[in-house]
Amino acid sequence: MAELSAESGIPVATIKYYLREGLLPPGERTSPNQARYGENHVQRLRLIRAMVEVGGLSVATVRDVVAAVDAHQPTHKALGIAQRALTGLAADVPPDDREWALEVVTELARKHGWQFGPNHPVAPALVGTLCTIRALGHVKLLDGIGDYADLADQVAQVDLDTLDALPSVDRIVEAAVVGTVLGDRLFEGLRRLAQGAESARRYPAGLDRPELSRGEHPEAGL
Amino acid sequence: MAELSAESGIPVATIKYYLREGLLPPGERTSPNQARYGENHVQRLRLIRAMVEVGGLSVATVRDVVAAVDAHQPTHKALGIAQRALTGLAADVPPDDREWALEVVTELARKHGWQFGPNHPVAPALVGTLCTIRALGHVKLLDGIGDYADLADQVAQVDLDTLDALPSVDRIVEAAVVGTVLGDRLFEGLRRLAQGAESARRYPAGLDRPELSRGEHPEAGL
Repeated sequence: MAELSAESGIPVATIKYYLREGLLPPGERTSPNQARYGENHVQRLRLIRAMVEVGGLSVATVRDVVAAVDAHQPTHKALGIAQRALTGLAADVPPDDREWALEVVTELARKHGWQFGPNHPVAPALVGTLCTIRALGHVKLLDGIGDYADLADQVAQVDLDTLDALPSVDRIVEAAVVGTVLGDRLFEGLRRLAQGAESARRYPAGLDRPELSRGEHPEAGL
Repeated sequence: MAELSAESGIPVATIKYYLREGLLPPGERTSPNQARYGENHVQRLRLIRAMVEVGGLSVATVRDVVAAVDAHQPTHKALGIAQRALTGLAADVPPDDREWALEVVTELARKHGWQFGPNHPVAPALVGTLCTIRALGHVKLLDGIGDYADLADQVAQVDLDTLDALPSVDRIVEAAVVGTVLGDRLFEGLRRLAQGAESARRYPAGLDRPELSRGEHPEAGL
């Protein structure tokens, strides 16, 4: 266990906690107070750490994802299980807003050939996000949703091309989990850099568009 | 205060907490234990709630973002302040990994005309993400990073087109904050739907590529 801790960089107390919580399979017992751990334990510990520290997922969620990785299911099904575990739940929303948001996404899904319905695992997160944007009076932010959907299709092509190159189903599902959590973070970061460059291009040298008002804005409602 | 709570749907105790923490400006005092709150308080409360509940940001971070919205700075500068506040910090990484990750992003930034360096506000998050992907043995996931960068440029175009349509600097910065937090969630959701459709297309009816191994994989190292 001390060696496993040294190899993975994770404290012994944390490893014991993961063992108790069933995130990490037990080692092969060699004596009453000794066990052998292998390379797969080190790999699994790194995966757990990435999900907890980088992905910000709860231990319960990590348990679901680990179960999805370990369940020997066809790729598409295993990917779905991992996605469901990784998708957060949304807060309560008023029924009218919920209906509006479901309609927006359903229409988009129809155009793009995506599976979608009120019980789709991604529905709560998407509906919650759309309703919050609306509640904040920023529906203008949704003007580009069709463009975002087109670009999401292109991003997904790259995502799946990457997974296709892997040699086994276990490896594909594991990479999908890592890619879902870290792939979102990676794209967020690149989007930030691209936004910065585009913002500098459009508003150079601290100059704003001359017609842009400050403070007062007669058309306060978007 | 009771009316403000009813209007915004946020409990009185929470509103008092936001007032104490300086997230919400005080109302106009009309008597020793009465104050008047306006539409701007309702709007601000919704913004705070979105950042805390949907964005998962800490109160300290929300305070920084609110200060950025309230600081009457040129648009590009105000956007930068909001971005910095919204960008999380990464865990410690080994110096060698850090150098490798900085090199990857610097090269990408050079090609795309993005500003980037070790002190860029997005650097810790991007470096942390890349290093974790590497530590997990999934550098294959980075094969498509150039494609992701191209697509991030296109997403940023849509982001800035949306902001350009707004009437005032305050409104632009506020929308950038909402758009940064919720825009990432929105794109994540669309990417999930697109991945699902693409995965179903490539692995139809539960069938996997015949050469795909299960469990054992001789080339375990990616």
